Amino acid sequence: MRAVDIVRKKRDGLALDPGEIDAFVVGVTGGEWPDYQTSAMLMAIVLRGMNEAETTHLTRAMADSGTRLDWSDLPGPKVDKHSTGGVGDKTSLILAPLAAACGCVVPMMSGRGLGHTGGTLDKLEAIPGFRVDLDIPRMRSVLRSVGCVIVGQTAEIAPADKILYSLRDVTATIESVPLITASILSKKIAEGIDALVMDVKCGQGAFMKTHADAERLAQSLVKTGLGNGVPTQALITAMDAPLGRAVGNALEVRECIDVLRGNGPTDVTTLSIALAARMVLVGGLAASLDEAERHVRSALDSGRGLRTIQRMIAEQGGDPHVVDDPAYLPLAPERVMVRAERTGYVAAINAELVGLASMLLGAGRDRVEDAVDPAVGVVVHAQCGCRVKPGDALAEVHYRSDLRLGEAMILLKKAWTLGDAPPQELPLVLSEISAAQS
Amino acid sequence: MRAVDIVRKKRDGLALDPGEIDAFVVGVTGGEWPDYQTSAMLMAIVLRGMNEAETTHLTRAMADSGTRLDWSDLPGPKVDKHSTGGVGDKTSLILAPLAAACGCVVPMMSGRGLGHTGGTLDKLEAIPGFRVDLDIPRMRSVLRSVGCVIVGQTAEIAPADKILYSLRDVTATIESVPLITASILSKKIAEGIDALVMDVKCGQGAFMKTHADAERLAQSLVKTGLGNGVPTQALITAMDAPLGRAVGNALEVRECIDVLRGNGPTDVTTLSIALAARMVLVGGLAASLDEAERHVRSALDSGRGLRTIQRMIAEQGGDPHVVDDPAYLPLAPERVMVRAERTGYVAAINAELVGLASMLLGAGRDRVEDAVDPAVGVVVHAQCGCRVKPGDALAEVHYRSDLRLGEAMILLKKAWTLGDAPPQELPLVLSEISAAQS
Repeated sequence: MRAVDIVRKKRDGLALDPGEIDAFVVGVTGGEWPDYQTSAMLMAIVLRGMNEAETTHLTRAMADSGTRLDWSDLPGPKVDKHSTGGVGDKTSLILAPLAAACGCVVPMMSGRGLGHTGGTLDKLEAIPGFRVDLDIPRMRSVLRSVGCVIVGQTAEIAPADKILYSLRDVTATIESVPLITASILSKKIAEGIDALVMDVKCGQGAFMKTHADAERLAQSLVKTGLGNGVPTQALITAMDAPLGRAVGNALEVRECIDVLRGNGPTDVTTLSIALAARMVLVGGLAASLDEAERHVRSALDSGRGLRTIQRMIAEQGGDPHVVDDPAYLPLAPERVMVRAERTGYVAAINAELVGLASMLLGAGRDRVEDAVDPAVGVVVHAQCGCRVKPGDALAEVHYRSDLRLGEAMILLKKAWTLGDAPPQELPLVLSEISAAQS
Repeated sequence: MRAVDIVRKKRDGLALDPGEIDAFVVGVTGGEWPDYQTSAMLMAIVLRGMNEAETTHLTRAMADSGTRLDWSDLPGPKVDKHSTGGVGDKTSLILAPLAAACGCVVPMMSGRGLGHTGGTLDKLEAIPGFRVDLDIPRMRSVLRSVGCVIVGQTAEIAPADKILYSLRDVTATIESVPLITASILSKKIAEGIDALVMDVKCGQGAFMKTHADAERLAQSLVKTGLGNGVPTQALITAMDAPLGRAVGNALEVRECIDVLRGNGPTDVTTLSIALAARMVLVGGLAASLDEAERHVRSALDSGRGLRTIQRMIAEQGGDPHVVDDPAYLPLAPERVMVRAERTGYVAAINAELVGLASMLLGAGRDRVEDAVDPAVGVVVHAQCGCRVKPGDALAEVHYRSDLRLGEAMILLKKAWTLGDAPPQELPLVLSEISAAQS
């Protein structure tokens, strides 16, 4: 089976059979397929698509390109959540301990931020001493004692995805529902989970800008997960304004602790509970969504979620005092306010601009090799719907150097749109897709 | 201008502007575009297409990627013919001297055979001593004294095409009208010609299988030639059965000499005259096609064409005696007949099978690095329309080794289709496209 013949078949819009998909993934992983044939194939997939059976098999083949972890020695359903990425999206740090406190085993492998979106690993590394590079035996030990662990993806997990993703990034072949589906799910399936909850972000600050595109991706994720024996539930959630108030690594960790104490912003709290409840439900630990939500609220209200994250931090080498006293988290030396210049209601906050401003301050990275500053970022003071008058604080900028502060301030001033009337309140969860409906 | 952004624009079906096309071609030629970005771009072009302006500019940029030859010191119109390739297609060796005998200057750069189709350079090298690797000063000197020269493409001609073609071959991105157009015309334009005649082959033995596909390519070639200041006339001609009787290098040279003596098969003679007359016409040496045909027939009937090829052979280091006595050409040591097994009329001869049989005997190559045997090949005895009875010769096989003779014989037996009634006579020239019509 020659590579060029498989590429030609996809170019001509035909469905590839499992043997052809295996040849592609094995060839990519082993280096027998040179990059130029792989990128021609990727472009053909972007423009010709893949049907459900092809996407399911591609996902399986990519998951099988490396090690598939096995946690069957640990009691309880293995459940994870994955988000397609947003600004201020810190729900992983909240829902992992909440779901674990409800009986789930959460072996979460997460990523780093790039561009305007943040990454869970960068946030956790703002905690002094926190280690995200645990090996499998250490992961198992943390999972056994705490019920959740959040680490970086190891080299053995879906190596085909690493090769494909680095090529997709430079060949304009990112935007493809089957390729995005296979990339996300192959890694999650290789993680050894029984069920998955997907948070598909939708809006101007997300990868998927329209509800229709987000629905298409969510449908594909749910069908492909099920096709690979991993029941998947997807929420499509709004990503127009930043989620919560904090954008920036240590600032977000602090907000997560606030949420777990019951003092966090409503939007992050609501979404974290909604996602954690779906994890409990798909994990089979509740008979209905109502029951699952009651479990999660009880874990939150009782402080079990807070104690779980404190134990996870300690087990992963981090300083557990951060949970009791945020002064143990790094703090930026300088602050400045972004202030309203007129009277009005906050009609919109452009999440992408806030994310880019935070990146310019050093909280995120433009290129994968850049380092991040754990302390800097932006705290939103005036959320959507707030009434402000001239001089009122819209946001507080936490910064270290004023090198790119001017640029960041310009973006932040642009990010707030003020209107004369209170804006319509928009829902956070736009729709939900589960296997039965899809 | 980043490569990935140009690839994305084409992926999204937008037309590239001249600056973007230049960046692509210059990047490919200079090696700044890695192969994986180039092949993603090629696949995007295959699936999204290019409009007339893009194709014209791509052709110009590829022609400008190397040297553009200049023959303005030589009097007379510089005209060439190019064929998209067929089996037994030896018209170049006939029309080049005929057009030169009519006053054209023919600086022909030709190629080698691959797969089932033959190549002009391989045919000429069957002539003992013949050199196809002339440098530009030597080409100029042959053109000045003879009026025509046939050589291989030098490294300075359209280097972008060499890089793109080798990638297209292994990434299933050959089949694209704009890419084929730019590949053919960039080389011809860099040759320094004033006008071009295209022989677009159509049928089961050609690259373009249907008349609609051949028309599309011909239209694109004519428009793109004109857009680059090279008036181009295209004939769409049948390539179902082999052209003429001889398939194989020395055998075809011999047939060409027969044609130039006035003793060749009707189909090759007719097509060579038709193409040479278009060269005379687009070169401005005749006021009408009728007048151009009279010039060409006079060059043929007077023997001026024959003397011109004899002088070209001599000037290019070949043994001019081959023109007077075919015994100076290499001859295969062994012969065997393919015979009819039933009574009937030859309804069809599958050119592709005859071409593949000839390749198996050693006349052609499967891979570009293979050597060819000048002597071997197939001579058709029973052309389409012939009535045969059991035992009559369909073809004579000229071979050296019986290593792959069995395979070749099987293909040849399959190639002839016999029917009970005389087949309908089909035209050789199917249609004609010139700038005014296109």
